[in-house]
Amino acid sequence: MASLTIFADRKSQPSRAILIFCKVNGIEFEEVKMDLFKGDHLTAEYEAINPMKKVPAIAHGDFTLFESHAILIYLACCYNVSEHWYPTDLRTRAKLHAIMDWHHTNLRQGAAGYINTTVVAPKLGKPPNPEGAAECERKLIASFSTIETMWLKNDASFLLARDQPSIADLSLVCEIMQLEILSMEERNRMIRPYKKIQKWVERVKNATNPYFDEIHQLLYEIVASSKQQEA
Amino acid sequence: MASLTIFADRKSQPSRAILIFCKVNGIEFEEVKMDLFKGDHLTAEYEAINPMKKVPAIAHGDFTLFESHAILIYLACCYNVSEHWYPTDLRTRAKLHAIMDWHHTNLRQGAAGYINTTVVAPKLGKPPNPEGAAECERKLIASFSTIETMWLKNDASFLLARDQPSIADLSLVCEIMQLEILSMEERNRMIRPYKKIQKWVERVKNATNPYFDEIHQLLYEIVASSKQQEA
Repeated sequence: MASLTIFADRKSQPSRAILIFCKVNGIEFEEVKMDLFKGDHLTAEYEAINPMKKVPAIAHGDFTLFESHAILIYLACCYNVSEHWYPTDLRTRAKLHAIMDWHHTNLRQGAAGYINTTVVAPKLGKPPNPEGAAECERKLIASFSTIETMWLKNDASFLLARDQPSIADLSLVCEIMQLEILSMEERNRMIRPYKKIQKWVERVKNATNPYFDEIHQLLYEIVASSKQQEA
Repeated sequence: MASLTIFADRKSQPSRAILIFCKVNGIEFEEVKMDLFKGDHLTAEYEAINPMKKVPAIAHGDFTLFESHAILIYLACCYNVSEHWYPTDLRTRAKLHAIMDWHHTNLRQGAAGYINTTVVAPKLGKPPNPEGAAECERKLIASFSTIETMWLKNDASFLLARDQPSIADLSLVCEIMQLEILSMEERNRMIRPYKKIQKWVERVKNATNPYFDEIHQLLYEIVASSKQQEA
């Protein structure tokens, strides 16, 4: 098997999903730690790996790939991972594809959009954009509601009422974890009404630990340090 | 085989991609014509098929599915379609997944976003939004540039230098066709510099005709009628 290199910034939610997936499944890889704040993704060297200049990306021998969902599917098919991650049943697989497609323009736009608007943009000196933030929050709340009513119905453990997690669970939960960097008040306002979402996040965490916490360690440290600065 | 129903509005680019795909591949289906302008997607009856209240969606026996890329993949796997539409080679398939993931937040946001901002929003009585339109146009132009430099390199016939079209070619080209409803001046400004894109659109059209033109007939008629009104 060709050697696998993962170009990832653990501050990035799709980067974390891929790292956790590989660790949980015993897939050997070399992690190239990219720091987006230092512009590691903007070098000519990295552009040869991922012309989109984004993380994550992988190199598997001489084969390179970007887009985290495409990477998760590729790795699930290449390596001998448990079937629940990317089920072979056509209809289950189709429903998971639909959730991952939906994610791009719903949960991700809401969550990443809110953080970019309220945390990242001000640090880059951009003017406040309360309408933009409100629009992202509406999208995020609507996404939580969709996940609960459609894919975590009844007492579902994981998406589509499955009893083990899939790559879609991992991708969506890593996105939701990014909300940790918001203030407690903001995060509670958004997520507190969604009890099924909270339980589901815990379940994905438990199903993938100790790797989930290991890969999220950097995020936890950033959160702790910013709370200390606030206090 | 269970019977297939496609809920589609031919004014919608992902609806057209699915209809063309089925016709080209001799997949039998019943088309339920939805009119988004009349709110056909907002009925309780349709919500049972697609709770997202969007088109397209399919019902295959008692199995329902939304998100056009997930539908195209599902149909390609269920029916005996030519392998070039959704190649079995893992790496080729992964690259096509990446293009389709990329599409959601790039070409689609640019093209559909521009049309929504400049054509749909004014019809709904919303105020002009020149900054929004300019942002969408930037995204669209950047997407054209990415497609040409990454996936239509050299004298490529289809995406990834393949000699036959894939579901990604069909999805992206149907998106680009939507620009027909803009004024000639606007469309030329955007697409004229991109000769490879123009040739590729023609190739996908030729590879899927007479069905491509048949399914686009409604769009052509809307364009002709609005040109007549202008004149």
